[in-house]
Amino acid sequence: MARSQETETQASAPPPRQAPGTLGVGMVGYAFMGAAHSQGWRTAGHVFDLPLRPALAAICGRDRAAVDAAAARHGWAAAETDWRALIARDDVQLIDICTPGDSHAEIAIAALEAGKHVLCEKPLANNVAEAEAMVRAAEAAAARGQVAMVGFNYRKVPAISYARQLIAEGRLGPLRHVRATYLQDWLVDPASPLTWRLKREHAGSGALGDLGAHIVDLAQYLAGELLTGVSAVSETFVRERPLLAGASAGLSGSADTVERGEVTVDDAAIFTGRLASGALASFEATRMAAGRKNALRLEINGELGSLAFDLERLNELSFHDHTEPAATAGFRRILVTEPEHPYLEAWWPPGHGLGYEHTFVHQARDVVRTIAEGAPPVPSFADGLQVQRVLAAVEESAAKNSVHTPVPA
Amino acid sequence: MARSQETETQASAPPPRQAPGTLGVGMVGYAFMGAAHSQGWRTAGHVFDLPLRPALAAICGRDRAAVDAAAARHGWAAAETDWRALIARDDVQLIDICTPGDSHAEIAIAALEAGKHVLCEKPLANNVAEAEAMVRAAEAAAARGQVAMVGFNYRKVPAISYARQLIAEGRLGPLRHVRATYLQDWLVDPASPLTWRLKREHAGSGALGDLGAHIVDLAQYLAGELLTGVSAVSETFVRERPLLAGASAGLSGSADTVERGEVTVDDAAIFTGRLASGALASFEATRMAAGRKNALRLEINGELGSLAFDLERLNELSFHDHTEPAATAGFRRILVTEPEHPYLEAWWPPGHGLGYEHTFVHQARDVVRTIAEGAPPVPSFADGLQVQRVLAAVEESAAKNSVHTPVPA
Amino acid sequence: MARSQETETQASAPPPRQAPGTLGVGMVGYAFMGAAHSQGWRTAGHVFDLPLRPALAAICGRDRAAVDAAAARHGWAAAETDWRALIARDDVQLIDICTPGDSHAEIAIAALEAGKHVLCEKPLANNVAEAEAMVRAAEAAAARGQVAMVGFNYRKVPAISYARQLIAEGRLGPLRHVRATYLQDWLVDPASPLTWRLKREHAGSGALGDLGAHIVDLAQYLAGELLTGVSAVSETFVRERPLLAGASAGLSGSADTVERGEVTVDDAAIFTGRLASGALASFEATRMAAGRKNALRLEINGELGSLAFDLERLNELSFHDHTEPAATAGFRRILVTEPEHPYLEAWWPPGHGLGYEHTFVHQARDVVRTIAEGAPPVPSFADGLQVQRVLAAVEESAAKNSVHTPVPA
Amino acid sequence: MARSQETETQASAPPPRQAPGTLGVGMVGYAFMGAAHSQGWRTAGHVFDLPLRPALAAICGRDRAAVDAAAARHGWAAAETDWRALIARDDVQLIDICTPGDSHAEIAIAALEAGKHVLCEKPLANNVAEAEAMVRAAEAAAARGQVAMVGFNYRKVPAISYARQLIAEGRLGPLRHVRATYLQDWLVDPASPLTWRLKREHAGSGALGDLGAHIVDLAQYLAGELLTGVSAVSETFVRERPLLAGASAGLSGSADTVERGEVTVDDAAIFTGRLASGALASFEATRMAAGRKNALRLEINGELGSLAFDLERLNELSFHDHTEPAATAGFRRILVTEPEHPYLEAWWPPGHGLGYEHTFVHQARDVVRTIAEGAPPVPSFADGLQVQRVLAAVEESAAKNSVHTPVPA
Repeated sequence: MARSQETETQASAPPPRQAPGTLGVGMVGYAFMGAAHSQGWRTAGHVFDLPLRPALAAICGRDRAAVDAAAARHGWAAAETDWRALIARDDVQLIDICTPGDSHAEIAIAALEAGKHVLCEKPLANNVAEAEAMVRAAEAAAARGQVAMVGFNYRKVPAISYARQLIAEGRLGPLRHVRATYLQDWLVDPASPLTWRLKREHAGSGALGDLGAHIVDLAQYLAGELLTGVSAVSETFVRERPLLAGASAGLSGSADTVERGEVTVDDAAIFTGRLASGALASFEATRMAAGRKNALRLEINGELGSLAFDLERLNELSFHDHTEPAATAGFRRILVTEPEHPYLEAWWPPGHGLGYEHTFVHQARDVVRTIAEGAPPVPSFADGLQVQRVLAAVEESAAKNSVHTPVPA
Repeated sequence: MARSQETETQASAPPPRQAPGTLGVGMVGYAFMGAAHSQGWRTAGHVFDLPLRPALAAICGRDRAAVDAAAARHGWAAAETDWRALIARDDVQLIDICTPGDSHAEIAIAALEAGKHVLCEKPLANNVAEAEAMVRAAEAAAARGQVAMVGFNYRKVPAISYARQLIAEGRLGPLRHVRATYLQDWLVDPASPLTWRLKREHAGSGALGDLGAHIVDLAQYLAGELLTGVSAVSETFVRERPLLAGASAGLSGSADTVERGEVTVDDAAIFTGRLASGALASFEATRMAAGRKNALRLEINGELGSLAFDLERLNELSFHDHTEPAATAGFRRILVTEPEHPYLEAWWPPGHGLGYEHTFVHQARDVVRTIAEGAPPVPSFADGLQVQRVLAAVEESAAKNSVHTPVPA
Repeated sequence: MARSQETETQASAPPPRQAPGTLGVGMVGYAFMGAAHSQGWRTAGHVFDLPLRPALAAICGRDRAAVDAAAARHGWAAAETDWRALIARDDVQLIDICTPGDSHAEIAIAALEAGKHVLCEKPLANNVAEAEAMVRAAEAAAARGQVAMVGFNYRKVPAISYARQLIAEGRLGPLRHVRATYLQDWLVDPASPLTWRLKREHAGSGALGDLGAHIVDLAQYLAGELLTGVSAVSETFVRERPLLAGASAGLSGSADTVERGEVTVDDAAIFTGRLASGALASFEATRMAAGRKNALRLEINGELGSLAFDLERLNELSFHDHTEPAATAGFRRILVTEPEHPYLEAWWPPGHGLGYEHTFVHQARDVVRTIAEGAPPVPSFADGLQVQRVLAAVEESAAKNSVHTPVPA
Repeated sequence: MARSQETETQASAPPPRQAPGTLGVGMVGYAFMGAAHSQGWRTAGHVFDLPLRPALAAICGRDRAAVDAAAARHGWAAAETDWRALIARDDVQLIDICTPGDSHAEIAIAALEAGKHVLCEKPLANNVAEAEAMVRAAEAAAARGQVAMVGFNYRKVPAISYARQLIAEGRLGPLRHVRATYLQDWLVDPASPLTWRLKREHAGSGALGDLGAHIVDLAQYLAGELLTGVSAVSETFVRERPLLAGASAGLSGSADTVERGEVTVDDAAIFTGRLASGALASFEATRMAAGRKNALRLEINGELGSLAFDLERLNELSFHDHTEPAATAGFRRILVTEPEHPYLEAWWPPGHGLGYEHTFVHQARDVVRTIAEGAPPVPSFADGLQVQRVLAAVEESAAKNSVHTPVPA
């Protein structure tokens, strides 16, 4: 790390050959997700025993000064301003896509066609058609030994991974209910500005794609089965918001003349559904829940037990074993920090908790191992497409008076 | 109390005249709700300053021995086996109806026509038509100075009542979300028997009417506005259950030949909806959530703040004030046990919490005051009817592929 | 109850003979504790199957108007202004002492000598000598078949009683730690007035006797063993407080001339100790913990498990079973509302919680059963004396530079 | 980072000169603390704007193979087997001491005398005399512009740092109570082996120095004042434990002949004390609290408010503002993840929590800034010495029948 920080980050220099046993990563995008992924790539090899060492080969962004600064800050050896150049680099074997959803398909397909592995942030695409094209490209690439994965990082929270394990072992029995909410509050203030995340052409959807995609994926992942249909309602409570500073040149800047633009995505989406087994599911994704900062909450009830989770307390899993005598039964708070727990073999002693960013360290670990071992990618682009189909069914139902709308198989 | 316990409870004896200043109560039904209401009537006058003293005049049930035992146990001065005789008693000014829903309309209407005040357990009736007839009877009676109220007792939890006060004062600003669940688990075991609560002809519906009625009422009460429509799904996970012992005479009793009957109500109902202001609402009522015993949970988010409540911790109210600086903001746990809090003027010092049954003490207080002061009854039969209409819309939507179904005004 | 309310409460009238099968109660004191005990006596017979029916025969206080009002409010059949007259009543078999500690010994001993059963509020007395005299009187009375009990009502919280059961069954194994705090905040404000509770001559001590007595008793009750010695520190943070209004006649009432008096008891006492088995214990009793209203918190750790309790959430018990596999172990939140739990055979369905006052209903149940069954009284005056000896050792240690001070056996 | 991983780690090679603007770190020890510190040094420069870039120059341990493996795993450019050689390296400006306490003094003093900055893990030393010598060396070095700091890393939890800020701003008013516990459970099982941490000659003390040092430091740091004296009791519940495998050569290995050794440190220490202002404090440090994994819990009560913290939920701070109206007052759960909170300017959006290891990233940030800015070191060796004096007073009091023992100024 010290040495790489000394390195000048020059895109024009011939990229260094990676030593055998490394996996050269090229990342597109360097905002929030870029920073988080960087931390994952930097750390995974120092914590886990990995078959390949992730090398932060090059980062890519359109603004030269900004991307150079990002490379220096986050520890990337080089910087590119054209993602096609990034894909072309010999020292890059994996393209990590951290851009807004409207560019996912183009970059991912090009990278796969160029023989690179791909990790793509969620939601996989801004619509089903793009996601389908990405799956086709991934299938063709898989035949050539390439890996394509989607960044549902919350599967990598140890408590979530352990919950999946308990359910797969049958500890909950037949499932009856899944309830999932993802509540944030950063749009509560009507004066919050109109960013790209609030425009359909860039973000695809609002809370639905950003937050809803996570809870749809987690509900299905944990249950081990898919949604067959949904019934939905969505809302944009604040339909106009101030344009970002600089976007309204020539304005006097006085408060009463601030220029506003239309919000073209949802602030919130709530929906119900059924899983294949007949279990009922409910979902709520919103950016308008005052005081809830990152409240991704899940509860699953089965005939033999229940599980509950809250991302704001991500080191904990609540488990109720309904086979216990009633007098001593109750939801127990498991601190998911024991060496027996998923991903915990390499971290700290019991009770010394992990944080949000560790999901990206774990994701990096899993991507590297999948590539090295030739294992089927999980979660795959096909998983990402299926979630996209659920989101599309949600939007269709919301547009059709909430009528139950099947999710195509 | 000591004296009344010594009294022989004989329905044949001429009922004693109540002293001036008492309110003679006649209660129909003596199971769970009867016990809870008895505790309310017995206690209210010893805790609150009341304009009329509730007198436990007579209790009514069909089985003579059982109703006599109930009268002795619960402190009623007399016992009747015919509710018409109860209504006819001179020492009874209020009929308190604690029977299953299929008898609510007949008893309530007869009592009102006989000039009695009425308190009727929720849900008001088993269908909208019955509820409408009850409202008509209540309106006619109101013109004669009679009071008719419905037993939405959870409004009387101090934390709920205080939450309503905070919302009415504008502390949450415009509302965005209401989410309400009422989770129980007493039907999780498929061997749980087929009681009257699982038969449509007696109970009207299942979790929907029993649990859903409470959360629909509370959501609207707290928000101060009504649902305009709903989209629903419901399910009966266990469609046959063992008949109650004694109901299957002649059976060998061996496990493999136990007689089963059909469950004709829902185990669970989940639905979404909109309030008049445009706020989104979600609801879940279920008896199949393993480990959740009485988890009536509410959260309301507005532009200026949020409130959250859990009936399993009924002395607490969570309040987030979104107008505070972000660095010190957070959901605060208010112990709703201060003398300034609703109903708390007469109880214990701060931190010395109340329990479930206190809702019935508070209900008794409010009924007595409403009668004495001639105030409009809250919650009224009209409120009960409106909830019934929501429940009917839920059932209609569930039967029509979850399509959004308006609630008639 | 209705009938008793109609009764004129006249101390001069000859007391009515109780019917066979009743236990006539005479209560001294009618403030906070009097109200709570009244609720216990009124309710116990309506909820539990009791061998004797508690009859609220007479209440006693020095002020005629006040005690008459209290009798009417709380449902007592008669009122006395002299506790000796109360003891003399034929319709009184049990004297319930709810006065400040400085009168406990005199009343209790007189009642026992008069052949009455006695229930005495805690702390048993204001010093060890008084408590010893009370124990001698109780022993003599026991030989005559009388019962003497002390009102450690928190033993009657179902969660506490169930915790004792789990420990007695060996679920915690050998004990290592007991930690107990009882935190309140009603003296945080320096302007809070100087009541009798802050004067040594009436209250004996401050937080120590009021709050510390409870946690000393509970720690020993739960552990099933006694403290052998303690090391203590105590403090009076606010040494002068305003005299109560009316106590400073002739003052102008302006803020700067308000008369103040000396606080002669502790605001807080903290102490450590050892149980007979060698387990370590820590205690803190304070009225100066801002925001803590009634935070009686207990945790007990043993080789096989742990238990935790918080009176502000009195329907819950946290239990960690250390014999479980580490991956699924954790503190479970038991809702102590199942029919199998202590005292719950007669209350509401699971999850429908109880409150503070139910401890007095349970206490009434236990007193009645002890008397009817001739069982050894638990907790006895001897238990109260032993707690008094612990409190005395605490005061001695605090006065002697915190040196470890043995508790006499 | 990728580059440094490729580098051969050879102690014999001449150390490379650090580029201007870097801070070369040499770390002694590579077990738990070494891994945690490595993560801190690796990450700080990628997250925070730092005036100097930490360079992981060399790691030191006695076993060549092990230290080489540690260097490769944790990202250190070189490895040494002699700490004197480490100190001698030109590319090392800071010595980071992560060894057991018995070697702290020797290494730290040598490093300071060689002109290096020093960061030393807590407790600063195994006794007061060593700590005093270290402080003298630090003072001499300070005159030469060197920095010496002690690793009380929990001060760097954002919630703790923010709590300090609130107290310093006067939000709690005059303090009344500090209560601090640090509960772990890894010695509950009597079969847990006898490691160096259980031998006085290596560890100095047991739970007292390991856990108690943290809570003593935090209590004083948060309160902004020092303990004047303590009264203590300590215990070793399990006095013999199995020797570690390999430590008992020649044994048959059968269970009944397993060799055992004496535990010479405390399993638990509990103590009370007074702060300079007169506030009362209580402490408990134990490794025998079944089910408590890392329960460092703090609560501070003042006349104007209270704060509470639990390391098992380290992103949260509970704050009660006692100046609010009672009806809306309560402990609020602040998610200390806002950009305004300490250390949060550089991390993730609100609600995306941090973990245990981030304390070491923050510590690295603070060490670098202190060195670059020439600021007084906080926490300093003098702070470490003062904590050592408290620990010594605890041991003295425990040995002297718990008598109150002053802490030398």
